[in-house]
Amino acid sequence: MAHSNQDPHCPEHRLYGNSSRKIHVDGTLWPLRVGMREITLSRPYLSGGQEFTSFPIYDTSGPYSDPSVTFDPEKGIPPVRDGWGFIARESDRAAATAPEGSMTTRIPRKAKEGSGITQMHFAKKGVITPEMEYVAIRENQRLEEWTLSHGRGAVHATPVTPEFVRSEIARGRAIIPANINHPELEPMIIGRNFRVKINANIGNSALSSSIAEEVEKSVWACRWGADTVMDLSTGKNIHTTREWILRNSPVPIGTVPIYQALEKVGGIAEALTWELYRDTLIEQALQGVDYFTIHAGILRRHLPPAEKRLTGIVSRGGSIMAKWCKANGKENFLYEHFEEICEILETYDIAVSLGDALRPGSISDANDEAQFGELKVLGELTTAAWQHDVQVMIEGPGHVPFHMIEENMQKQLEYCHEAPFYTLGPLVTDIAAGYDHVNSSIGGTLIAFHGCSMLCYVTPKEHLGLPDRDDVREGVVVHRIAAHAADIAKGSPAAWLHDELMSQARYAFAWEDQFNLSLDPEKARKLHTESLKAAGHTGADPDFCTMCGPDFCSMKKSKEAKTLH
Amino acid sequence: MAHSNQDPHCPEHRLYGNSSRKIHVDGTLWPLRVGMREITLSRPYLSGGQEFTSFPIYDTSGPYSDPSVTFDPEKGIPPVRDGWGFIARESDRAAATAPEGSMTTRIPRKAKEGSGITQMHFAKKGVITPEMEYVAIRENQRLEEWTLSHGRGAVHATPVTPEFVRSEIARGRAIIPANINHPELEPMIIGRNFRVKINANIGNSALSSSIAEEVEKSVWACRWGADTVMDLSTGKNIHTTREWILRNSPVPIGTVPIYQALEKVGGIAEALTWELYRDTLIEQALQGVDYFTIHAGILRRHLPPAEKRLTGIVSRGGSIMAKWCKANGKENFLYEHFEEICEILETYDIAVSLGDALRPGSISDANDEAQFGELKVLGELTTAAWQHDVQVMIEGPGHVPFHMIEENMQKQLEYCHEAPFYTLGPLVTDIAAGYDHVNSSIGGTLIAFHGCSMLCYVTPKEHLGLPDRDDVREGVVVHRIAAHAADIAKGSPAAWLHDELMSQARYAFAWEDQFNLSLDPEKARKLHTESLKAAGHTGADPDFCTMCGPDFCSMKKSKEAKTLH
Repeated sequence: MAHSNQDPHCPEHRLYGNSSRKIHVDGTLWPLRVGMREITLSRPYLSGGQEFTSFPIYDTSGPYSDPSVTFDPEKGIPPVRDGWGFIARESDRAAATAPEGSMTTRIPRKAKEGSGITQMHFAKKGVITPEMEYVAIRENQRLEEWTLSHGRGAVHATPVTPEFVRSEIARGRAIIPANINHPELEPMIIGRNFRVKINANIGNSALSSSIAEEVEKSVWACRWGADTVMDLSTGKNIHTTREWILRNSPVPIGTVPIYQALEKVGGIAEALTWELYRDTLIEQALQGVDYFTIHAGILRRHLPPAEKRLTGIVSRGGSIMAKWCKANGKENFLYEHFEEICEILETYDIAVSLGDALRPGSISDANDEAQFGELKVLGELTTAAWQHDVQVMIEGPGHVPFHMIEENMQKQLEYCHEAPFYTLGPLVTDIAAGYDHVNSSIGGTLIAFHGCSMLCYVTPKEHLGLPDRDDVREGVVVHRIAAHAADIAKGSPAAWLHDELMSQARYAFAWEDQFNLSLDPEKARKLHTESLKAAGHTGADPDFCTMCGPDFCSMKKSKEAKTLH
Repeated sequence: MAHSNQDPHCPEHRLYGNSSRKIHVDGTLWPLRVGMREITLSRPYLSGGQEFTSFPIYDTSGPYSDPSVTFDPEKGIPPVRDGWGFIARESDRAAATAPEGSMTTRIPRKAKEGSGITQMHFAKKGVITPEMEYVAIRENQRLEEWTLSHGRGAVHATPVTPEFVRSEIARGRAIIPANINHPELEPMIIGRNFRVKINANIGNSALSSSIAEEVEKSVWACRWGADTVMDLSTGKNIHTTREWILRNSPVPIGTVPIYQALEKVGGIAEALTWELYRDTLIEQALQGVDYFTIHAGILRRHLPPAEKRLTGIVSRGGSIMAKWCKANGKENFLYEHFEEICEILETYDIAVSLGDALRPGSISDANDEAQFGELKVLGELTTAAWQHDVQVMIEGPGHVPFHMIEENMQKQLEYCHEAPFYTLGPLVTDIAAGYDHVNSSIGGTLIAFHGCSMLCYVTPKEHLGLPDRDDVREGVVVHRIAAHAADIAKGSPAAWLHDELMSQARYAFAWEDQFNLSLDPEKARKLHTESLKAAGHTGADPDFCTMCGPDFCSMKKSKEAKTLH
């Protein structure tokens, strides 16, 4: 894998400059350590009576920002979850040896015969797993004390407890995607009573990109703040690409197994069979995929309304299943075999992300009969999966005009019994090619504010080509803005505090603190430095804003006015 | 002025490639021609029974996209409004000769003694001015026929008539900023029952940039879709910079006159006087500035609540006035002399943009006593200005959490009697440095949906430095997305049709049509071409999406499925 000077593997880029360091918070129920990134501030800031000389932030970069860990992408990152002892105790070996093509010697595991292994299984039984404690600590960002005294908003006014996590998972309102065969995972939770999450799609196509590039993109995505990564590879070497990504990924990995199944039948949708699909699920389950997108909700009765649309079916999985159904004159085999699918998922604790095969591909098609018809079926499938203690989330649109977005969230809550919603955008217009990441962040903020739990990023290349590394960064950061804006609107104390510290730093002209507290410290620092340079400024950072110059700096003038009587 | 190969003055860039051409629609009441950009489509598209082989779009680029016009930035663009005969008939000469420093020999004009000249004056008298007819034609985009049969939404279901424009202006719900001394202007309308508009700020500071650069940025801003431009220059040569910008600008130019006044007193706020400010207003009025931001609403009683804030006063004009009030122990002289200000404005038909000196500079300060206290005063000033037939819009925030944005719009409508709202963002978080253009477009879409009439753009350099030409383009395009998304949500038939044609082109794999119908055709084309090249594809554009390759193209599969029985 190429190591450029911007590579996250390079030590000088691990910690976002010298003002950040990796910290770990120990569990009290389990022998676990939760990694966070702590930003050292240049001066103390006061908020609600508490003094902050540092600020711990939610960190998705895993060991890549830990200087004590050494990396070898061919060996993968450390299997942290194995150290917690829970998986080994609660599961059996699924094979005698590691499968062919495995990068490690670890033997895959499965649920014990007749016994459950999923987070939902344990949650319903009242058991707090290591994963539940992990996410509770993680969500709190070590701000429990501050939160208790200064929380805003209803749900977030108190710190997250492991028991609250358990209850939300038991209720189906949140999920922790964590295949027992992905021991490298740092668990995270998806649910609307937690921090809004974002997903980054990577994956090569028949047209481009190598395995090394995809692994690098997945690391890069975590580095910038992706909470989960979907490997949507469709070209050659799907199995090996996925193995590399999983073994190097501290975040949950999702896939759309029908893509690999289709490759196995040479791209001919109508040749797909249940048996082939089932074997693909098991193959990926043993590798450690944390969640599967499964398009089981598109039924034959939905096809006539979909055919009336402006842009038909724009979900890849959906169009494959539609073609299969019509060519074979049969009902969707993913629907027909959903019980058997759940039996596989519950054996490894794989969450199901129920695909919205009929998401609108243009604003004209939004909220139509086809889309909401499928959503109702996804609600039925949710109930079915929950009976197997399989964790469920629901995928959502797509292209939706701004004023029609809230209805999507309302209907999803109603039809799908509050299972977490995971949307692609929505994009609020069709004409933003080249800027669809912005388009998506607009709709994404609105739907996350209304209760969507995870936003799938969109990059500037959407509709035009596959994203490169810069597109991944741009897509991730912009959707982190959307997710963070929704967290603020929902009253998250940690989100409010972050902004408050930033604004105090801004008012104090503490430039380094401003950069470090920004979502993309490197870009903020770069733009500022370039501007100063272009203006011929040298020496120390100025005590005025570089947009306006000394005489017109409002913050400077405002402070001066304050001292006058 | 440097002419790069991306320069809008270069003929090859005037028309966005060969598929666009400048068209003109003649007035019926006045001898005027309204320019539009017509995109030629590669094939006919059908919408609501009407066939479209071309699509006329709202065009802010003025003569810069007209191949019949030649340019010399030192001479300025043609004074189109002079050809309509109205200004000469209704006004008098304001001087004997053109003022010193003027780029043309045109002698400035003023209202006839004892007689009105403003659009509001004529609107109240029932007169439809050329400017009113111009904006009515412009808003309709030559889609009157289609709109009548296929309009969506209440307000937009019928074409805009000159009479409707007149009534909205008479009511104060819309404005046409059009100083009679800016004859180069192509009139446009700002009001919530019309297309959402965007403004681009340019202007040098003491720290950087030349006159030529600023003129180029202003042309560049119109080229990408800015509806108005504010010249916020604060450094040397303010007068000359403005003269160049005005003489080369087909869009309304706004300024904040206090900036020039402050330069005249060497940057010492407390040394400002009413007389000096008044003379500055007149100087700029004679040059042709179309709207003035005036911070007349910040009063001494607002200062104590503002001093309690996290980030104080972040409006430059606001901080200047606050310092002046405190240092001199007197009330804001802009408030005290507001009647006299209105007398100047009505003499030249300059619109007033009542500045929100107390807009929040951090989400913690949003919707506070200081902000809404000032907004109430802006409402009083609105009534006072309307008594002089001065057109008014109201400036708004700033940094506002997503869930607190709607309240801003509601209070503005209530306090300010439905005068158009013109907001900076709002930014929905404080921590997006380097990406504040996206941050702003998120809040901007929401407030425009609720009725904001014009969004001031924010560039990626916000909080960090002055925008360069690339930042201007990025800021403009991203805010056009926000404005367009709001237009769609508000039911604009033209906006819906634009998206529908785009999606038909997308479904037909008509790549050139997709590029041409995008908000930034050049970027869309570039990203697509780069992706194809990276994938090794040569020859004709493919009939599948370049993101997924032929086997996984959902639109291709979806079409194939449709043909099966």
